[in-house]
Amino acid sequence: MDSFAPTHRTQVQRAPQRAVYDRAQIYSILDEGYICHAGFTVDGQPYVIPICYGRAGDQLYLHGSAVSRMVRALAENVDICITVTLIDGLVFARSACRHSINYRSVVVLGKARLVTDPGEKLEALRCLTNQFAPGRWEEVRKPDESELNAVSVLAVPLQEVSAKTRSGPPADAGPDDSLAVWAGVVPVWTLAGEPAGDARVPPGVTAFDIRRLTRFRHGGDI
Amino acid sequence: MDSFAPTHRTQVQRAPQRAVYDRAQIYSILDEGYICHAGFTVDGQPYVIPICYGRAGDQLYLHGSAVSRMVRALAENVDICITVTLIDGLVFARSACRHSINYRSVVVLGKARLVTDPGEKLEALRCLTNQFAPGRWEEVRKPDESELNAVSVLAVPLQEVSAKTRSGPPADAGPDDSLAVWAGVVPVWTLAGEPAGDARVPPGVTAFDIRRLTRFRHGGDI
Repeated sequence: MDSFAPTHRTQVQRAPQRAVYDRAQIYSILDEGYICHAGFTVDGQPYVIPICYGRAGDQLYLHGSAVSRMVRALAENVDICITVTLIDGLVFARSACRHSINYRSVVVLGKARLVTDPGEKLEALRCLTNQFAPGRWEEVRKPDESELNAVSVLAVPLQEVSAKTRSGPPADAGPDDSLAVWAGVVPVWTLAGEPAGDARVPPGVTAFDIRRLTRFRHGGDI
Repeated sequence: MDSFAPTHRTQVQRAPQRAVYDRAQIYSILDEGYICHAGFTVDGQPYVIPICYGRAGDQLYLHGSAVSRMVRALAENVDICITVTLIDGLVFARSACRHSINYRSVVVLGKARLVTDPGEKLEALRCLTNQFAPGRWEEVRKPDESELNAVSVLAVPLQEVSAKTRSGPPADAGPDDSLAVWAGVVPVWTLAGEPAGDARVPPGVTAFDIRRLTRFRHGGDI
């Protein structure tokens, strides 16, 4: 299947021309991001919390302390929503109401599953670590048994998924075109700055190569 | 009051040293951001949607089409959560499990109020427009009556509010310090690129001055 099937809950109703169900495009948004906003409901109150994630195929992985309120809530087979948003630009229109944002966002609905299989748990932590930078897991110390026990890993299947995107110039109504007001798009990029090595790194250790962060722009390439 | 009073719902339990209730600091995070993630529950399913916002004193304003599913859900006096997250850096540790993110986030719990007073509605749209760039409202065409009718504005009071922040180097356990692995922080900035003017802007209109976007870095100042 090259697309996720829309359901009555993921069928985009407003601005349907912005809807995306294409699997490759949705993967690409999820792989470019590194922070999601996880939504869950406790005693009728929704909570939205920023949290790291990783993707392996059609699974999103989240992790947190085994004693955290959020992780315990998420692991209880409740309905959750995971949203990943990338911002591409500020859209300045000639009229106040047409101001907009160029963006790409993915919304995943479903239930989280507590990962208990030790092999899958390690694989999930590998994904989560490599979401920081490709190959990072392979160069750092792996979790020991007590660390594995202290962390809970949750898997959210990519089943009920939609994306929404906006790109391009402002959509002013024709008569506004003649107004003497600048209109256009200011592109927004995420920039990775100069890595600041920890003071205790032993001499001789090679500094982090910023070019590994392919999702970002760097000081030298803008 | 210089701080928001924590409630049992906003009392930070994990990593309480990261908790912030200070009003000035919370305002500053909200004023630096321009996209929030709004969480609300429909038929037991939480939804998390990225949306623009503006702040005036202790009110957050959101807006959307009067016929949007989300706006109608939010306006029905349901419990919602508004979260604003700013990312400051990727924290690379020597061990997989200590990787982290430097961030500042604000979580607002409450109920949205549909703004019906015409004066407050205009003031809210002014805040929302000026969240793009200071002074933008003053230079664009204001909404006419049909535009005002087509947009719904919601107010969320800043009452039950908390923030959480992390900054600084990785928190590796002492014995890991001697590992031959680079550790440190890669700062993450939001960069505003060169404004791309719309093709239909009349000749003679002054281009947008990127320096108005004080929350961002610009190509010339990194």
